[in-house]
Amino acid sequence: MKALVFHAPGRVAWQDVPDPSVKDAADAVVKVDAVTICGTDLHIVKGDVPEVTPGRILGHEAVGTVVETGGEVRGVRPGDRVLVSCISSCGRCRFCREGRYGQCRGGGGWVLGHTLDGTQAEYVRVPFADLSVHPLPAAVDGLEAVLLADIFPTSYEVGVLNGKVGPGDTVVVVGAGPIGLAAIATARLYSPGRTIAVDRAPSRLTAARDFGADATVDVREEPERLVEDLTDGLGADVAIEAVGVPEAFEMCTRMVRPGGRVANIGVHGRPATLHLEDLWIKDVTITTGLVDTHSTPMLLRMMAAGRLPGAAMITHRFELDQMEEAYEVFAQAGRTGALKVVLGGPRHDAVAVPRQEQ
Amino acid sequence: MKALVFHAPGRVAWQDVPDPSVKDAADAVVKVDAVTICGTDLHIVKGDVPEVTPGRILGHEAVGTVVETGGEVRGVRPGDRVLVSCISSCGRCRFCREGRYGQCRGGGGWVLGHTLDGTQAEYVRVPFADLSVHPLPAAVDGLEAVLLADIFPTSYEVGVLNGKVGPGDTVVVVGAGPIGLAAIATARLYSPGRTIAVDRAPSRLTAARDFGADATVDVREEPERLVEDLTDGLGADVAIEAVGVPEAFEMCTRMVRPGGRVANIGVHGRPATLHLEDLWIKDVTITTGLVDTHSTPMLLRMMAAGRLPGAAMITHRFELDQMEEAYEVFAQAGRTGALKVVLGGPRHDAVAVPRQEQ
Amino acid sequence: MKALVFHAPGRVAWQDVPDPSVKDAADAVVKVDAVTICGTDLHIVKGDVPEVTPGRILGHEAVGTVVETGGEVRGVRPGDRVLVSCISSCGRCRFCREGRYGQCRGGGGWVLGHTLDGTQAEYVRVPFADLSVHPLPAAVDGLEAVLLADIFPTSYEVGVLNGKVGPGDTVVVVGAGPIGLAAIATARLYSPGRTIAVDRAPSRLTAARDFGADATVDVREEPERLVEDLTDGLGADVAIEAVGVPEAFEMCTRMVRPGGRVANIGVHGRPATLHLEDLWIKDVTITTGLVDTHSTPMLLRMMAAGRLPGAAMITHRFELDQMEEAYEVFAQAGRTGALKVVLGGPRHDAVAVPRQEQ
Amino acid sequence: MKALVFHAPGRVAWQDVPDPSVKDAADAVVKVDAVTICGTDLHIVKGDVPEVTPGRILGHEAVGTVVETGGEVRGVRPGDRVLVSCISSCGRCRFCREGRYGQCRGGGGWVLGHTLDGTQAEYVRVPFADLSVHPLPAAVDGLEAVLLADIFPTSYEVGVLNGKVGPGDTVVVVGAGPIGLAAIATARLYSPGRTIAVDRAPSRLTAARDFGADATVDVREEPERLVEDLTDGLGADVAIEAVGVPEAFEMCTRMVRPGGRVANIGVHGRPATLHLEDLWIKDVTITTGLVDTHSTPMLLRMMAAGRLPGAAMITHRFELDQMEEAYEVFAQAGRTGALKVVLGGPRHDAVAVPRQEQ
Repeated sequence: MKALVFHAPGRVAWQDVPDPSVKDAADAVVKVDAVTICGTDLHIVKGDVPEVTPGRILGHEAVGTVVETGGEVRGVRPGDRVLVSCISSCGRCRFCREGRYGQCRGGGGWVLGHTLDGTQAEYVRVPFADLSVHPLPAAVDGLEAVLLADIFPTSYEVGVLNGKVGPGDTVVVVGAGPIGLAAIATARLYSPGRTIAVDRAPSRLTAARDFGADATVDVREEPERLVEDLTDGLGADVAIEAVGVPEAFEMCTRMVRPGGRVANIGVHGRPATLHLEDLWIKDVTITTGLVDTHSTPMLLRMMAAGRLPGAAMITHRFELDQMEEAYEVFAQAGRTGALKVVLGGPRHDAVAVPRQEQ
Repeated sequence: MKALVFHAPGRVAWQDVPDPSVKDAADAVVKVDAVTICGTDLHIVKGDVPEVTPGRILGHEAVGTVVETGGEVRGVRPGDRVLVSCISSCGRCRFCREGRYGQCRGGGGWVLGHTLDGTQAEYVRVPFADLSVHPLPAAVDGLEAVLLADIFPTSYEVGVLNGKVGPGDTVVVVGAGPIGLAAIATARLYSPGRTIAVDRAPSRLTAARDFGADATVDVREEPERLVEDLTDGLGADVAIEAVGVPEAFEMCTRMVRPGGRVANIGVHGRPATLHLEDLWIKDVTITTGLVDTHSTPMLLRMMAAGRLPGAAMITHRFELDQMEEAYEVFAQAGRTGALKVVLGGPRHDAVAVPRQEQ
Repeated sequence: MKALVFHAPGRVAWQDVPDPSVKDAADAVVKVDAVTICGTDLHIVKGDVPEVTPGRILGHEAVGTVVETGGEVRGVRPGDRVLVSCISSCGRCRFCREGRYGQCRGGGGWVLGHTLDGTQAEYVRVPFADLSVHPLPAAVDGLEAVLLADIFPTSYEVGVLNGKVGPGDTVVVVGAGPIGLAAIATARLYSPGRTIAVDRAPSRLTAARDFGADATVDVREEPERLVEDLTDGLGADVAIEAVGVPEAFEMCTRMVRPGGRVANIGVHGRPATLHLEDLWIKDVTITTGLVDTHSTPMLLRMMAAGRLPGAAMITHRFELDQMEEAYEVFAQAGRTGALKVVLGGPRHDAVAVPRQEQ
Repeated sequence: MKALVFHAPGRVAWQDVPDPSVKDAADAVVKVDAVTICGTDLHIVKGDVPEVTPGRILGHEAVGTVVETGGEVRGVRPGDRVLVSCISSCGRCRFCREGRYGQCRGGGGWVLGHTLDGTQAEYVRVPFADLSVHPLPAAVDGLEAVLLADIFPTSYEVGVLNGKVGPGDTVVVVGAGPIGLAAIATARLYSPGRTIAVDRAPSRLTAARDFGADATVDVREEPERLVEDLTDGLGADVAIEAVGVPEAFEMCTRMVRPGGRVANIGVHGRPATLHLEDLWIKDVTITTGLVDTHSTPMLLRMMAAGRLPGAAMITHRFELDQMEEAYEVFAQAGRTGALKVVLGGPRHDAVAVPRQEQ
């Protein structure tokens, strides 16, 4: 089959590789119908993620069709249309038993496209399939559903739930890229009183309004003052970091009100300064986290009911074999205006013949 | 009356001042029977707390006898023996309505010995008396009760409750001074599986064991490794910072397990480094806070039942007019071995005749 | 002034009574601009509430204008437009300190129109005014705001919050009268996946759809089977009782899924049968409660933002002196189609001259 | 092998049956070293549990040694000493993913000695072994550990956790049989202020004191009045039903304070009367539940540390083949004073040779 292989920092290729097959009785092999590219993939390509070794197939998000299952797999069968989650779960370790699948110690967690071959390929082997793929309801569009593999559950769990967004709250989202936009959209499930988006790019601020922000502000135009003005000087109930740089995080800690929550979603490469000399007295809660995807079944139902803005997030579509071009467009989002690029889709659905039955 | 007056950094004096009286209908004037000195008082004396202006009477903890009440006061009467809490509460602002008295916006919060004259005096005027003093059960010793004005509720609420200590947890307390010891003692209310104390002073580590620590470790002897060894490499469920320096806080963020909690109690004067490059993926919750004292009634009942180690915390006793000497002993805890010094006590109880009846 | 006075079961009159005045320093006297009638008022008139003694002025909901305040009142002044909450709060007792104002032991709780003279009058004396009235934002319509005195916070706190409605949940509301409709409307703040309304009256089922129900079912047409069918045989996540009869409560306990919640809002006069022989194993949580009105400030902001369907709830308007006619229309809701009847309104606003300045 | 087989109501026999073996790849076969009898077993023998059909081997609690495992089993190996939990968990259904193993829809839940052959036998086949047995720490005594198969986690989860026992609380436990005593003992993990036990048998009230009750009262001597007196007329924070009869449950609903919790642990065969005419206004939370055993690992650590009174609970010991005699003694607890009877133990440990290696 074809797959996107990481060879060295800055060097990946869409090339022939051996087909995957079931290795463990809990595995499923899934034919990839649609896949997307994550900001994390760009970091990997740059060489920022040393656990990813040469030869690794990238990608941790997909929608596809099950073509083969190991003997232990009970929840899906060949022919089933499924969402491949970015997180695999062994289901047995103490973290999986608590629903903290992202911290799995039994061989799961974030493994696809990281320590195991991933989804940016024609086929992918998924470990612990029963707990790591989700059958897709017929009502869910396969293209949009790929956004439930990572971005929507991440923004919802790590941003909205960790930040304990509640009815009437003032929520600030710093960073209006895909993760920030998904945070704005999923925060609405809890009816905040006001959502304020902060970014540098006018196009992203426009997108933020489309996804539900009530106010937007350029990061260079004193966003802290806006938040102060809108909250009688008190600060936001929840500040969500959706960039992954110290400056954004530190801004969140200045914007939050006494008793408020700072929820970090961003992937950071450098330390931030925590101004404990101001914060120690302020009753602030700061959370970090990797997604667990425990919310994926609920988000799937919400998407099936048309209540998540999936389509609006997909700005570019490609065929699977245009992988390198799609990376290019996504990497240059500032120029291309890309939010999420999706590869594959309907054309593939039409031919989803389970391979093992051939 | 006599009181301890702050004149300038490094300069305080036990001197004559005018007697306080009821100014507002919600005030009570309390004759001070016992008072203690807080680490924060030492900071004030050094000049670290600029809101404290020359002429201010220090102190925010006391046990005493009500001698006069304003027209609005319904909960206490002259003659009542009361605990004067370090936090006053207006009872009307949004924070007080949520039980976050420490963040009161209506004139309360930490005001005694800070923005209003405090308790290190023969008499003190307490604002919002109904919500800011607690009648003392007869079973509670007046000397020990003074520890419920600040240190026990602070360690319990900001350390144990914010840190969500639960049965079976591994809890690390960094800093075994009075606040850390009170955290160790009140954590026991939730039956942790194991409490580990970290400090530099052997005498404090010994005290930590007396207050309930199961293990202790000198900060210079790789405490992180001990925690790792005791938790199968996972880390502590809860790490409580009870020092107030960046190094201690940062150690806590290294010691905590994925999914764990870091509860900061320490009063910080400098920023810390938050290693988001490690922590972003680790599902960590970090909390800061000023005490609200919502737990004071429960802690009073626990103390009345002999279930808080109050007596063990009091290492030195003085008469009220030995205030300057008491500061000296407390400030040099390393040399004197002081945990908490208490001034006043039984001798005063014997003559607690309500002033206004004279 | 004129007021509606309870004389005996079945006998009330709109008649002359003495004007109220400030009796306690925490009181405010409010000129009533708009008032409504509650289902509980009908029970009182029938004689079902023995605490209500002859001579009592009824009513516990109003919007009005402050005309006089006692010396302790700090939060409102004469001339302020306010919402008079159905719950008064002393602010000092243990329940008020926990935000459980409905259980106040210090002279508050539900007192207006119950143990003290109420709001169905030209003027009303409100005890503990600082914690018992809410200044109205200019953006809030005075007529709709009267629905925030009781019905909306009751349905939200006792139904939606106690029932822990969450995103994606299946929520059943048994009873589509005003309280049930407000539960349907406020449940939406938590984005349930599906809300099902059960009632007997076609007009109420139609109203339920208008307020946001996704499905409705006549109580005689096997509502339990519908819930079962819609939930793959599992049952509802949350079942809200909004009638106040044993049959409705028992239906809720049959409709709820394992692990689900039954939130009782209804005011009951008779015991229900609790089928513990079925429920003991089912992990069910059942809650009851009187509203605390802690959510009123948030709901006011939501109403100001146009996010609560207040106007749709008001089916009939009257002048204050049409009180008896209004009771008639409300009591015969089956015939008149009444949801909420509101008395007073704009005409009164125009003449809202603070009495004490005359 | 020998096992206790249910034949008909009132008729069971310790008899020869075929040895169990691995049927499913997730199974383990465990040689039973120690087993106990549950109150539920007595109900089954009487014929009260119709799902138990003739031929079924009874028992859902055991400590034993793994002798054979299916191909999917990863967590235990032949030779491992394990606790067999009363609850099996498929690990895949929505309830298992939420930690609600007791409600498992994938073939687990309470199955042993119920819908599958159980533990009152020389060997038992355990489904979903990875999630249904717990390796025993060396420090845990095998006899006491059998109490962690059901009774301790049941009392802790369904009584103490559902009842949200907290520091300083007044807790009433109605019924001082084994379940009630385990509730008293595990409530101590949360440091209640006062625990009151209610029962009819003087010996059980004495036991209640031994297990940590601060006060005890004969059910015929106005227990409600005692609770009222001890709580200034307010009622208990938490009332735990540990009998399983309507009268006990109803007593709990009368004893609980406004805002308090009633946690039902008892297995009920008849409905109770719920006095909603009193309770609707009282802010009460009532919970029911089957144990999930999510707390078993923590309780195991607590037992290993000597912090659970296991030994005190075991009043009678028998050899496995004295099963019928043990039932007799347990069934007549009133006469024999039996709390828990344990069969098997050390003698068996000595010969625990994994069968499959023979």
